[in-house]
Amino acid sequence: MSDSRNSRTIPGGEGPRLLTADAIAQLVGGELRGDGTVRVSAVAPLDRAGGGDLTFLAAARYAPLFSRTQAGAALVSPELANEPGAVRARIVVSKPHEAMLRVLPELYVAPPRLPGVHASAVIGRGATLGRDVSLGAHVVIGREVVLGDRVTLEPGCVVGDGVEIGDDTHLFPGVSVYPRARIGRRVMIHAGARIGSDGFGYVFNDGAHQKIPHVGRCVVSDDVEIGANTTIDRGSIDDTVIGPGTKIDNLVHVGHNVRIGALCLIMAQVGIAGSSHVEDGAILAGQSGLAGHLTVGKGARIGAQGGVFGDVPAGETWSGYPARPHKEALRAQAALFRLSGLMKTLERLIDRERR
Amino acid sequence: MSDSRNSRTIPGGEGPRLLTADAIAQLVGGELRGDGTVRVSAVAPLDRAGGGDLTFLAAARYAPLFSRTQAGAALVSPELANEPGAVRARIVVSKPHEAMLRVLPELYVAPPRLPGVHASAVIGRGATLGRDVSLGAHVVIGREVVLGDRVTLEPGCVVGDGVEIGDDTHLFPGVSVYPRARIGRRVMIHAGARIGSDGFGYVFNDGAHQKIPHVGRCVVSDDVEIGANTTIDRGSIDDTVIGPGTKIDNLVHVGHNVRIGALCLIMAQVGIAGSSHVEDGAILAGQSGLAGHLTVGKGARIGAQGGVFGDVPAGETWSGYPARPHKEALRAQAALFRLSGLMKTLERLIDRERR
Amino acid sequence: MSDSRNSRTIPGGEGPRLLTADAIAQLVGGELRGDGTVRVSAVAPLDRAGGGDLTFLAAARYAPLFSRTQAGAALVSPELANEPGAVRARIVVSKPHEAMLRVLPELYVAPPRLPGVHASAVIGRGATLGRDVSLGAHVVIGREVVLGDRVTLEPGCVVGDGVEIGDDTHLFPGVSVYPRARIGRRVMIHAGARIGSDGFGYVFNDGAHQKIPHVGRCVVSDDVEIGANTTIDRGSIDDTVIGPGTKIDNLVHVGHNVRIGALCLIMAQVGIAGSSHVEDGAILAGQSGLAGHLTVGKGARIGAQGGVFGDVPAGETWSGYPARPHKEALRAQAALFRLSGLMKTLERLIDRERR
Repeated sequence: MSDSRNSRTIPGGEGPRLLTADAIAQLVGGELRGDGTVRVSAVAPLDRAGGGDLTFLAAARYAPLFSRTQAGAALVSPELANEPGAVRARIVVSKPHEAMLRVLPELYVAPPRLPGVHASAVIGRGATLGRDVSLGAHVVIGREVVLGDRVTLEPGCVVGDGVEIGDDTHLFPGVSVYPRARIGRRVMIHAGARIGSDGFGYVFNDGAHQKIPHVGRCVVSDDVEIGANTTIDRGSIDDTVIGPGTKIDNLVHVGHNVRIGALCLIMAQVGIAGSSHVEDGAILAGQSGLAGHLTVGKGARIGAQGGVFGDVPAGETWSGYPARPHKEALRAQAALFRLSGLMKTLERLIDRERR
Repeated sequence: MSDSRNSRTIPGGEGPRLLTADAIAQLVGGELRGDGTVRVSAVAPLDRAGGGDLTFLAAARYAPLFSRTQAGAALVSPELANEPGAVRARIVVSKPHEAMLRVLPELYVAPPRLPGVHASAVIGRGATLGRDVSLGAHVVIGREVVLGDRVTLEPGCVVGDGVEIGDDTHLFPGVSVYPRARIGRRVMIHAGARIGSDGFGYVFNDGAHQKIPHVGRCVVSDDVEIGANTTIDRGSIDDTVIGPGTKIDNLVHVGHNVRIGALCLIMAQVGIAGSSHVEDGAILAGQSGLAGHLTVGKGARIGAQGGVFGDVPAGETWSGYPARPHKEALRAQAALFRLSGLMKTLERLIDRERR
Repeated sequence: MSDSRNSRTIPGGEGPRLLTADAIAQLVGGELRGDGTVRVSAVAPLDRAGGGDLTFLAAARYAPLFSRTQAGAALVSPELANEPGAVRARIVVSKPHEAMLRVLPELYVAPPRLPGVHASAVIGRGATLGRDVSLGAHVVIGREVVLGDRVTLEPGCVVGDGVEIGDDTHLFPGVSVYPRARIGRRVMIHAGARIGSDGFGYVFNDGAHQKIPHVGRCVVSDDVEIGANTTIDRGSIDDTVIGPGTKIDNLVHVGHNVRIGALCLIMAQVGIAGSSHVEDGAILAGQSGLAGHLTVGKGARIGAQGGVFGDVPAGETWSGYPARPHKEALRAQAALFRLSGLMKTLERLIDRERR
C-alpha cells in the first residue's frame, strides 16, 4: 500500500529556508553590527556552527567558544556585544534565547497539515470528527469519541470509547487513551504516552489483592504537553486532572486521583503517588518523587531526586531524601561530609565522656 | 473502514445505572439511616459529590468535608455514623472501602464482551485461538501462538512466536509480548507494557560489548496485573518469573532472571536488577531499586526511593540509601539533621581536643 | 487476514538443536572429562537443569548447587574442575561465561530472516528500501525515509519523514522514530522505544511556557542497543548523539542535546538531563541521574541511584546524593550510621560546651 500522506504533519518537514542578518535583526528588533547581507539557513551551537548557520551568545562563559566560532551570524546580548570573534554579522538583542524563538519558525517551516483519514484507520460507531482532522495509518478510535477541529492522530494511536479531544490537539505515534478521558485544546502528547490507565489500588481480601475498579476519568486541560512514554492513571472514584499550560516530560508517572495545577513543570522520570496535589506553577525536577495524599504548594520547587513525604509550603524549595527545605538539606549534607573527617577525634572525645 | 466492535471490551463502557440507598444497604449488609428511596447513579469524593452521587466517610479527619457534602447518599463507618451533615441517606457499614468495592460493579457496568477477530488483525501460521477471544484492530499474533478462552487483545498488541496466553487474560492497547513468553490466566497487562524483552547482558571482548543471547522465557503467572509502559525482560539462560497474584504498577523495570513471588506489590518506577529474588508478599514502594543477585525476603517492605544493595530478611522494613532497617535509617536521618545545628560547637570541641 | 511471515525474524524462532559434550568441548576449546556422548538441547542454571541441559560452574560459591545439579553436562572453570558432583560430562574451560556465548548460538538457532513487506505496511512517498528489508504488519514509514539492506522493522513500528536507518538494524515491535533521526548499522532498538521526541524546553513569556521548537536531530551510531520503552529526545538546535557500541537499558531517559560517547553502558531507568556529555566507556548504574550541562569523563562510573550535579573526572567512580567520589560517599555513610549511636553523649558534651 502506497501512501502519500502518512506522518506529514510531523514538525520539521519542509527543511530550512534562507534569512539575511538584516532580516533577522528586523525580526527580533535587534541592532545589526557587521554585514547585513550574510545569509543563514539553519541554527547551530557556537562550536558546531558553520558559515551558513546562525548561533547565539548569551553568557560570558561561552565567550571563548564565541571567539572561535565559524558561524555566519550570531544573536548576542548587549553586555557581550563587543566580545572578540570573527563572526560576520552580530545581532545585538537583550534576550538572545527569546529572539531565537522568533527566528526558528522562520528558518524551519513545519510541513503543511494535510487533513484526511487514512484508509487503514478504524473509527467506532457514533464517533464525531471535527473539521480538518488528520487520522494517520492504523489509528483506532472507539465508540462515541468526539474529536475537535484540526485534531491530529499520528499512526498507531488508539483512542478508547467516549474520549473527547479538543481542537488543535496533536497525538504523536502510538499514544493510547483509555475510555472516557477528556483532553483539551492545543495539547501535545508524545509517542507512547498512556493516558487514563487504571491506577494501582487493591484491597487485600480472601487471600488476594482485590482490584479497586477505576471509574474516574483522566482530564488533561488546554495547552498541556506530555512527554514520550509518560503514564497518567485515571481516577479511581474521583478524576485525575492536569491543569492548563502544565508541561510534563518523558517517563513521568502520575498516579490516580492526582491533581496538578496550571503552568507546572514536571521533569523526566518524576513519580507522583495517588491523590497528591501539585499546585499552580510548581516545578518538580527530574527523578523526584511524591508520596501519596500530600500537597506541593503554589510555586514550590522540588530538587532532582528529592523524595517528598509530606506537604511542601507554597513558594519553598525542598530537596533530598526525605525532602527538607533546600537550605537545611544542603547544610545537613555539608555537615555530614565534614563529620566524616572529624570522626576519629569525635569518637575519642565521646569515649572519654562515657568513661 | 467503519467498525462496530473496536475496544468494546474496555471497562466502563455502558455508563452508570441507578441504585436506591435501600438497595445499597442491602447489597453491602449495612444499616440504612435516612431516606432509603434516594437514588444514586455514580460515586464521587465528599467534596465533589452531587445529589445523584454516593460518597463515603471512613476517617474522622474527613468529617469537615462530610458536614458540607452535597452527596445524595454516603457509606459511613459505625464510629462516624453520627457526624453532622445533610446527606439524605447514610448506610452504616463496618468497612466503607470494602463496601464500595461491592457497590461499584453495580453502578458501573462493564460493557459486554463482544468476541470476534477484527478484519485487520494478522494471525501467524499454526496459532490456536480459544473460544470467544477478542482480537482488536491491527493486532498481530505470531506463529504457533496459543490463546486461551476469552482472551482479549486490544488494538495494536503484538504477540511473538510461540507465546502462550491463558484464559480470560486481557492485554490493553499496544502491548508487546516477545517470543516464547508464557502468560497465565486472568492476567491484566496495561497499555505499552513490554513482556520478555532481551535483558541487559554483555561480555566485553575484542573491543566491543558482545551481546549475551537471551534464550530464557518471561513467565507471568495467574492473576497478575502489570502497569502501563512497564518492562519485564526475559531470562538469559534461566526464566524471569512473576508469581501468582502479584501486582506491578506503571514504568517498573524487571531485569533478566528475576524471580518475584506470589502476592507482591511492586509500585511505580521500581527497578529490579538481574537475577534478584523478591519473595512472596513483599512490597516495594515507588522508585525503589534493587541491585542484582540479592533476595528480598517474604513479606519484607522497601520504602519509597530505597536503594537495596544486599539481602533483606523476611518481614523487615528497610529504607534509605543504601537501604538499612527502617528504624536505623530514621535514626540516622534524625541524627544528621540535629548534627547540622551542633556543627559549630562540635568543631570547636574537636579543635581543642586536637590541639 | 492470514499471514505466514509476521514476526518470523524475532530471535529464538527455530527451537533448540542437539549437541554432544564432545562437540561442545571442541567448540569452546575445552577439555572433556566424563562421557563425551552425553547430548544436550538447552542451557539451564545449576538448580534447574535436567539431563538434557548444559549448565556451568564459574564461582566457588555455587559449588553446593553443582554437587546436586541434574544437568547432563557442565562448563567448569579449571580451579573448580574437581568439585564433587554427578554431572556426566564436564567441559573444563578457562572462561565458562565466554564459552557459553559460543555454545548458545549453536543450541538456539535464530529463525531465518524471511525478507518482505507485509501487505498492511504503509510506505511514504520517496522512501528508499534496501535489499532484503523486512517490514512487518502495520509498519508505517514516512516520506523520503532511507532504509539500508536487511533492515527489520517489526510490527507496528512508525518511522517519521526523512529518517535514515543503516544496514542490518532491527527495530522490535512498536518503536517510534521521529522525523529526521539518523540510525546507524547493526543497531537494535527494543519494543516501545522512542527515538527523537521533542526535548523539554520552554521559555516563560506572556504568562505561558512557550515551547522551544526542536530542530536538531537524534543520531544513533552503529552497534548501539537501546532497551524497551527508553526515550531519547532530539536536539533543540544541536543534535543528540549516541556513540558507537554504546548499550542502553530499559526505561532510560536521554534529554535533548546530550552527547554519549562510544562503548558506554547506561543501565535501566537512568536519566540524563539536557546538554550533558557522557564520555567514552562511562558506566551509569541503574536509576542514577545526571543534571544538565555537565560532563561524566571517559571511563567514569556512577553508582546506582547516584545523583550527579557536577562534572565527574575521567576514570573515577562516584556515588550517592549528591554524588561524590565513591570512597568519600562510603565514609560519610559510615560516619552517619556510627553517629546515630553517639548522639546522646555528643549532645551532652555540646550542651556543656555551650554553657
